[in-house]
Amino acid sequence: MSSTLRAIPLYLEDLTPGMIIDAGPRTVTREEGVAFAQQFDPQPFHLDDAAAKNSLFDGLALSGWHTAALCMRMVVESPLGQIASGLVGIELRSLRWPTPARPGDTLRLKIEVLGTKPSRSRPGWGTGELRWVVRNQKDDIVMTMENTIWAACRPAL
Amino acid sequence: MSSTLRAIPLYLEDLTPGMIIDAGPRTVTREEGVAFAQQFDPQPFHLDDAAAKNSLFDGLALSGWHTAALCMRMVVESPLGQIASGLVGIELRSLRWPTPARPGDTLRLKIEVLGTKPSRSRPGWGTGELRWVVRNQKDDIVMTMENTIWAACRPAL
Repeated sequence: MSSTLRAIPLYLEDLTPGMIIDAGPRTVTREEGVAFAQQFDPQPFHLDDAAAKNSLFDGLALSGWHTAALCMRMVVESPLGQIASGLVGIELRSLRWPTPARPGDTLRLKIEVLGTKPSRSRPGWGTGELRWVVRNQKDDIVMTMENTIWAACRPAL
Repeated sequence: MSSTLRAIPLYLEDLTPGMIIDAGPRTVTREEGVAFAQQFDPQPFHLDDAAAKNSLFDGLALSGWHTAALCMRMVVESPLGQIASGLVGIELRSLRWPTPARPGDTLRLKIEVLGTKPSRSRPGWGTGELRWVVRNQKDDIVMTMENTIWAACRPAL
């Protein structure tokens, strides 16, 4: 990890293209997976082994929204969580789940900074483009996405 | 709502371009907003009024992931939840939160079917393209996205 990201707090200028930020790992239990699904995505393939076996998932799978929310928590606890203005998303693009995450999986992710630019509409602010790649313990990719975030520029001294 | 969507279960052929499906409403409490944020997105503007007042959000805001998860629950309970093969997302595109959802908001959404097509890789299946527009009780748009889902074709008689 770049030593740049040890500065706290971070500003737009601290995000440079090609920088990679690691987040996680986080192991998710079966109980957590079922509890999330009961609350937000109560479909048989997220709740019941037998039903899941006969579904597209061929076995119990986490809700994709649970995978995404777990990743958000890992990122908030990563160096990116030190952005002075917080992690505030403007847009997500092309969020996919190539392989389902499953109860018991250990997830970790790498975020690449694709670029930044100053905001035209909001002086003192800019936007960063990030690519997220999330893998399980077998190195299967369980989620990918790109997003745009707000970040405050470093204040003048 | 089209009477087509009263058929249960639903198959790819039941989704026709221009069809609108209503989901919700769902009122989200402050306690729910804070509990979700503590678990998945523990940032000050989702947890604390004073910190939120001094943030981009100008007041306590739900995590965007919470807004998305609440919408998923509403959609599972809508007629789209009757798709025979379940609601299984392949990709989300251009997910945005134009106005933050806030504790106490009542959310509802409209989903428009943009189109469907048979799968080339998976016989007996196809994909549907949907556009989600989520509004609060003031009719402000709090989330928009498009997504692609899997749906099984109607079995031959």
